[in-house]
Amino acid sequence: MTPQTDLLITNGIVMTMDPDDRVIQHGAVAVSADTITAVGPATEVARRPARTTIDAAGGIIMPGLVNTHTHAAMSLFRGLADDLPLMDWLNDHIFPAEALLDKHKVHAGTLLACAEMILSGTTCFCDMYLFEEAVARAARAAGLRAVVGEVLYDFPSPNYGTIEKGFDYTRRLIDAWHGDPLITIAVEPHSPYLCAPELLTEAADIAREHGLPLVIHLSETRREVADIRKRYGATPVGHLANLGVLGDNLLACHCVVLDDTDMDLLGQHDVRVSHNPESNMKLASGVSPVADLLERGVCTGLGTDGCSSNNNLDLFTEMDMAAKLHKASRLDPTVMNAATVLRMATIDGARALGLDGITGSIETGKKADIIVVDTRKPHLTPMYHPASHLVYSVGGSDVSATVVNGRVLMKDRRLMHMDLEKIMADASRIAETIRSR
Amino acid sequence: MTPQTDLLITNGIVMTMDPDDRVIQHGAVAVSADTITAVGPATEVARRPARTTIDAAGGIIMPGLVNTHTHAAMSLFRGLADDLPLMDWLNDHIFPAEALLDKHKVHAGTLLACAEMILSGTTCFCDMYLFEEAVARAARAAGLRAVVGEVLYDFPSPNYGTIEKGFDYTRRLIDAWHGDPLITIAVEPHSPYLCAPELLTEAADIAREHGLPLVIHLSETRREVADIRKRYGATPVGHLANLGVLGDNLLACHCVVLDDTDMDLLGQHDVRVSHNPESNMKLASGVSPVADLLERGVCTGLGTDGCSSNNNLDLFTEMDMAAKLHKASRLDPTVMNAATVLRMATIDGARALGLDGITGSIETGKKADIIVVDTRKPHLTPMYHPASHLVYSVGGSDVSATVVNGRVLMKDRRLMHMDLEKIMADASRIAETIRSR
Repeated sequence: MTPQTDLLITNGIVMTMDPDDRVIQHGAVAVSADTITAVGPATEVARRPARTTIDAAGGIIMPGLVNTHTHAAMSLFRGLADDLPLMDWLNDHIFPAEALLDKHKVHAGTLLACAEMILSGTTCFCDMYLFEEAVARAARAAGLRAVVGEVLYDFPSPNYGTIEKGFDYTRRLIDAWHGDPLITIAVEPHSPYLCAPELLTEAADIAREHGLPLVIHLSETRREVADIRKRYGATPVGHLANLGVLGDNLLACHCVVLDDTDMDLLGQHDVRVSHNPESNMKLASGVSPVADLLERGVCTGLGTDGCSSNNNLDLFTEMDMAAKLHKASRLDPTVMNAATVLRMATIDGARALGLDGITGSIETGKKADIIVVDTRKPHLTPMYHPASHLVYSVGGSDVSATVVNGRVLMKDRRLMHMDLEKIMADASRIAETIRSR
Repeated sequence: MTPQTDLLITNGIVMTMDPDDRVIQHGAVAVSADTITAVGPATEVARRPARTTIDAAGGIIMPGLVNTHTHAAMSLFRGLADDLPLMDWLNDHIFPAEALLDKHKVHAGTLLACAEMILSGTTCFCDMYLFEEAVARAARAAGLRAVVGEVLYDFPSPNYGTIEKGFDYTRRLIDAWHGDPLITIAVEPHSPYLCAPELLTEAADIAREHGLPLVIHLSETRREVADIRKRYGATPVGHLANLGVLGDNLLACHCVVLDDTDMDLLGQHDVRVSHNPESNMKLASGVSPVADLLERGVCTGLGTDGCSSNNNLDLFTEMDMAAKLHKASRLDPTVMNAATVLRMATIDGARALGLDGITGSIETGKKADIIVVDTRKPHLTPMYHPASHLVYSVGGSDVSATVVNGRVLMKDRRLMHMDLEKIMADASRIAETIRSR
């Protein structure tokens, strides 16, 4: 017996992002509870009665985007300081602002980020920050899918204190959120330069023990590589390899400065990479050799990084940047084509987070994480190839509906379950505190 | 006596972009007919009665953006072909599509582009294409300010035929549009590689004779530089210098491949440059040494180039790209800061077109080319520095009002004087012809 259709999304071009890259010209998607139950031509799928129907009006129906690396609550520092040398930016602006944070502010900043993500078509994000219990609560309240993990490093944290307590905090997160339909806990050591070898191996052990993602910043800057070489006689990737930390549950964020051996190691260990072009450009870290990683079969997703080095969470403009940056950098217009970049922002991002059985494509049996792009706009007219538009022409504000786990979070640019005025007022109030410090 | 205020834009942060870079926190702008009559604190300026009032609702009031290089009607080819080697893209897709054009299609494509520009905050554009009489008519119908010129090259044009007739066509444009409040005619030889030396010098003579801008593609690709070196024993810039074509009325578009001597020549002759980062990236032409040009005092504006190599006309995302690209390329986070890039997209763009006495800043006596950015959105919250938001966070869809020459062209995302449904339907119909060729 066919289950009751709770939600029908119809009358659009369905970009499934499934293994066959199937595109259904006049398509529809049926959802029962949290799960996709049918994908196909509207003439077939849309015949069933549905409790709720979203009319895509000839636009594009696609999987929600997956942001594989962000620090959501840094939305509070959006535009606080830009165009500065990295150390001035960190020491004079970001660290002092972060010293003012507590779990309430992180909750407020994460809600703000969730509102922005929902409005720009992101349905799943991977977060690394302080007070991550508050991040998990905010994501669940917003209805977004999220991978969250408390940042771990050698020095005392304003949240948990010493690193032993950091591991305790992480274990409590793992227990508390076990089985949650939306939240996955990850173990998140900051980086090889802020984490001693023992911290890294213990973090890896905990992640392995619980079958969870291990998330780290890796090889982001030339300075980091020089520093790790000096301390450990190896590149950051080589250092992690020596520690036995590389594996298919490791999500390595940034990966800007890599040599051939590093890339081979990442490939051999099936490490997942989060590519963050806008942040890498804005902070002048450089250009990640993503095309070389892809050639080696390294699963690579896209990430915005935090708002303070971007300065937004729009994965559509991030796709555009990723597609163009590598063409300019390699003087080759054929690299990072639209289809490749679109996969990075959807199914490959989900795979990078270990969630490709759940999200990242529109397939029967997967959770219903789906967005609709309204193409009835001059900047999306005419339309020859939907994938081209999604990468090169669409912005987050063209998203007209966002569904996560079968729940409609946004429709016609209106958030259904969030008090946006209050969220923005709270964020502005916190910004006043930061400004007046 | 103070003139009647026809239009008052109030209750916003006024980024004047005037010579003092004045920012008025709670400001207002008064307009009489086509001219700005007052700029200042809302408490003063907004006291006058006005026939029409636009409430910026705490957002940003700023000069309309200036797109210094585009081929507006190529909106019809948006996403027709991407990610291809340059010559395949041109020979297999763009040239065959252009062979189908006539003045009616160019008019339709330009209207589509104007709608997109108005909706994304561009109030002035510089166009180079075929059938430019139709472009001028479309821009005037849309209410946009434009510099338009028929593209001139050695081989026969589908519009005018031989080059002699091309010069006649240009002279007729100059006569027909003389004194138009919105349209300025320019003389536009395509490039040193498609234009014989005699064509270039005659074009320069006509421009000089009439005091008009001379617009050219210059040093866009390595291939061009090699070609011109081989034919004339000089770089493209050196070649134009030898021909006596360099001057302060010359707008050189792209300028990607420049050596130090080229840059010195551009600086010495006060040549204006149009920087087109997204197109240069997408076509893998490379990275223009804009920071070096700026150090030499070369006036540089921003341009999107045509939709087929971008694939949109949004100057806000172009600013973001420009600010980030050069940081990554030079590994310096301080180059192309927000204030610099914002000037490029406004007053320096106007100066590049010789229109800085008319547009590009909000100053008493200038024409009222003004836009409002709605900042009541999660991705623009909180706001510490308006310039940062405009470059790094705002997208064209955040523009809530567009005024050109004192006329309100868009308000609350609705075009006031254009039949958008018809414009999009016409463009889609033309796209069907192109698709089925």
